[in-house]
Amino acid sequence: MNDLVNHRLRHSWSADGGAASLPDRAVRWLGQRIGPVGVDRGSRVDSRRNVPGSAVPEAARAELAALLGDEYVLLDGSQRLDRASGLSYLDLVRARAGAEEVPVPDAVLLPADPEQVQAVLDVCVRHDVGVVPFGGGTSVVGGVAALRGDKAAVVALDLVRLDELVSVDPVSRIAVLQAGVRGPEAERLLAAHGFTLGHVPQSFERATIGGFAATRSAGQASSGYGRFEDMVAGLRLATPKGEWRLGVAPASAAGPDLRHLAVGSEGTLGVITEVALRVRPLPDQRYYEGWVVDGWQAGAAAVRKLAQDHGLADVTRLSDVDETKVSFALNAGWKTTALRAYLAARGIRNPCLLIVGWEGDVGRRRARTRAMLRCADAHRIGPALGQSWLRGRFSGPRQRDTLLDHGVCVETLETATYWSTVDELHDAVRDALTTSLGRAIVMCHVSHAYETGASLYFTVLASRDDADPAGQWQRAKAAASEVITGLGTISHHHAVGVDHAPYLAAEIGTLGVEVLRAAKAAVDPTGILNPGKLLG
Amino acid sequence: MNDLVNHRLRHSWSADGGAASLPDRAVRWLGQRIGPVGVDRGSRVDSRRNVPGSAVPEAARAELAALLGDEYVLLDGSQRLDRASGLSYLDLVRARAGAEEVPVPDAVLLPADPEQVQAVLDVCVRHDVGVVPFGGGTSVVGGVAALRGDKAAVVALDLVRLDELVSVDPVSRIAVLQAGVRGPEAERLLAAHGFTLGHVPQSFERATIGGFAATRSAGQASSGYGRFEDMVAGLRLATPKGEWRLGVAPASAAGPDLRHLAVGSEGTLGVITEVALRVRPLPDQRYYEGWVVDGWQAGAAAVRKLAQDHGLADVTRLSDVDETKVSFALNAGWKTTALRAYLAARGIRNPCLLIVGWEGDVGRRRARTRAMLRCADAHRIGPALGQSWLRGRFSGPRQRDTLLDHGVCVETLETATYWSTVDELHDAVRDALTTSLGRAIVMCHVSHAYETGASLYFTVLASRDDADPAGQWQRAKAAASEVITGLGTISHHHAVGVDHAPYLAAEIGTLGVEVLRAAKAAVDPTGILNPGKLLG
Repeated sequence: MNDLVNHRLRHSWSADGGAASLPDRAVRWLGQRIGPVGVDRGSRVDSRRNVPGSAVPEAARAELAALLGDEYVLLDGSQRLDRASGLSYLDLVRARAGAEEVPVPDAVLLPADPEQVQAVLDVCVRHDVGVVPFGGGTSVVGGVAALRGDKAAVVALDLVRLDELVSVDPVSRIAVLQAGVRGPEAERLLAAHGFTLGHVPQSFERATIGGFAATRSAGQASSGYGRFEDMVAGLRLATPKGEWRLGVAPASAAGPDLRHLAVGSEGTLGVITEVALRVRPLPDQRYYEGWVVDGWQAGAAAVRKLAQDHGLADVTRLSDVDETKVSFALNAGWKTTALRAYLAARGIRNPCLLIVGWEGDVGRRRARTRAMLRCADAHRIGPALGQSWLRGRFSGPRQRDTLLDHGVCVETLETATYWSTVDELHDAVRDALTTSLGRAIVMCHVSHAYETGASLYFTVLASRDDADPAGQWQRAKAAASEVITGLGTISHHHAVGVDHAPYLAAEIGTLGVEVLRAAKAAVDPTGILNPGKLLG
Repeated sequence: MNDLVNHRLRHSWSADGGAASLPDRAVRWLGQRIGPVGVDRGSRVDSRRNVPGSAVPEAARAELAALLGDEYVLLDGSQRLDRASGLSYLDLVRARAGAEEVPVPDAVLLPADPEQVQAVLDVCVRHDVGVVPFGGGTSVVGGVAALRGDKAAVVALDLVRLDELVSVDPVSRIAVLQAGVRGPEAERLLAAHGFTLGHVPQSFERATIGGFAATRSAGQASSGYGRFEDMVAGLRLATPKGEWRLGVAPASAAGPDLRHLAVGSEGTLGVITEVALRVRPLPDQRYYEGWVVDGWQAGAAAVRKLAQDHGLADVTRLSDVDETKVSFALNAGWKTTALRAYLAARGIRNPCLLIVGWEGDVGRRRARTRAMLRCADAHRIGPALGQSWLRGRFSGPRQRDTLLDHGVCVETLETATYWSTVDELHDAVRDALTTSLGRAIVMCHVSHAYETGASLYFTVLASRDDADPAGQWQRAKAAASEVITGLGTISHHHAVGVDHAPYLAAEIGTLGVEVLRAAKAAVDPTGILNPGKLLG
């Protein structure tokens, strides 16, 4: 039992011992650019004493305990607090402040299997209790906030016990995984059969199969393995109207593809309990390397060429000038002096770092990508930068915790648009963030490229306004979101949650929102599923 | 004006002068296998005299005429009959019999642009008139049948005047085409900008952009260019609740992807007026060739290998033993004697023909496919068979007309499933059709292959039961559909229409059907859009 709950996060990514250090040199470098940092402003208030009592009606609690067993219905304040929110900057700031306004679920439920999930929903419908599906808790958009909507009580439905590889069909290359399986465990289970999923978002270490599906996740190797929705062959959902299974063939013309309604539904249309996924053979090789392009526009043009002429590496990741500068400054592992000489010798004034990596059939594809990059005036630096990126690929959230300890406002946001708008959107978001935050570092990379366009992923570093840290970021985020609306999507892979809900209608139309509301009413007529998410 | 309406079909594919001939040799060959054929049983009753008067209320007609102009509101019986149905075997048989039970639309409306389409819907909502969107009229599942549902009148909304290339974004490689643009015209318009769509279903010559989107079409080169839904970047729809636009980025995590709800909605959720499509550079080369594999299972395994190891040609098409026999028997252009000697020399007893074709960057990819096919014990015959297939790729419907003239019951049906079920489904559908039809030729090919599975496309030839030609096919189709339900999808690229509606709930769940009904109610509360289709 302790195994099931003790992996929890205590509202930071570093609590499980993986804290990142911030060298003095980096602290000084940052201080010169964004203002005062380095003072230890990381003190955290113990919120545990403030957790209110559970509002779950006793009759409901008794039914749930009879169903799941007493030990799988947690009312303890500490356990409930651990599932109260995700891991956005706002979540972290509020948690550190011990803010009493953060809503806390009234119970944590730990069902064992899809049947128990269905039975829990039936109980919650009868007692009109809200249900927040909870996987890895890594949402950065408020997707797991314990909002009540019009319900008197809300529970966190933690799917951690749905941890099985249900089946593997090696001929069709499809594996069925339960929703609570986390990234590394999914890979371990599949590797025993010679397969990989290849889905490695930055949240990989904690995020779950169900969460990947519910949020339309995209991994760092999406250029090779596809977005998560490209992997989904089928889904099993529990809904207040009963179980719902989707997916009978690789492709179909039997009406709209409802798998695309379930994927991205963020727990509002059902609780995803199992996902049938396209898997691939475990790669026997992987190779990563760094290139440099002179200037953002030249870099974007090179990535566009790769995407449109079928030359993308499995990982293709282009940093803009500012992100490249920070990478060079903060990563001591890179031989900065040698690199500077290399760039100078080639007359490169505005280096943009391009990381490319191949898995599996490396040789043939690497030759093609390299030839295309050379044609695009890119310069190969070598494998050291690629390896360095690979080692640090999941470290972002840990670095963020450390930066928070140093009084830095640090957050990311992301979007995507068509190629002809990429430059305009890049500049407009940068401007909006800089205008709002003043002295700040705003950096960006393209990590997902398509024939028709690309994602843009921004990271922001500013000196934290300790008087109003949440307001400081909310204003900057709102400025960026206003700019994004009309030029791109409000989220390429972080989902909608609470934070992006105000911008959804501008993207899919008020009619689109009405259609989603109608779909929700059909499967969840009393609205118990994830109140306040996606549709606001 | 005549240009706009005279391309019509008169309920056959051959009426525009492209009739296929059936050599005596082929007639004899067929007769030996399926029983009496060759007698001229193609007599057609002139249905025109039976067309009932229009039931469109005079007030509605006047409003529509004021909106579109008198000449674009057609009440003439002949024009209405021409949009009364699609081109399934049942449609053709009924049309030939001059069957009075075929419902005929009460008017044909010819709006000029998306704004007029929207205005037409507004009029039809006010007067409670049903609307059947009509593109190329090539549906083989009853998708354009002029069903009234609970409405007193229904109109065919012919989109032929929405014939423009709206815009081309060469950087993002996206073109916006209006819904009424037919396949060849789309290619002509795009070619002027150096682009191609690459979408070539058998209905290519007549089917439209709007129809491709509404039915989730898949073309013969889908292995290279993708299914039609893979090309859709965005859509513009007219609905009773106003215009609806979808698609702001190549990929998004802003909730469910509603483009996948619009694509495949078959006119029930809105009238698609414009589609933004991913385009590709016009190929400067194309190369097609034939291979032979010994036996169906070996052939399917070879195609699976290509699909799973990224070696598919742009066109990859495997015929089973029976389809291969018919191809060899009916196509005099192939050097049958030489082929027999070739097969005998290699000990191939159950030849299965495999057509592969590449467009654009031929050399590199051809080498890879060929190497993989050799490893899979496939034997290359050469380009003649490939070229022969390419020449005849759109001739199926014309041959069908000729076969109908000769008293043959001839129809196709298709499905898709995961690789581990392909053989079982192939055999089960064959058995079901043969059991129902008695002496019949049932042949099958895989024309769309995916990493996880493949389509199966069956063609059936039997001696027609002139006493009950419709019932003869309906019983066979029902038997096949029962088998398909549970093993695969009821349609891989023909859509649902009327014919497949009874099987939809088994595929997407009664909950899936309820969700679609709810979505429809949100955009079309009075149910004027394509009554009786998709949802029955």
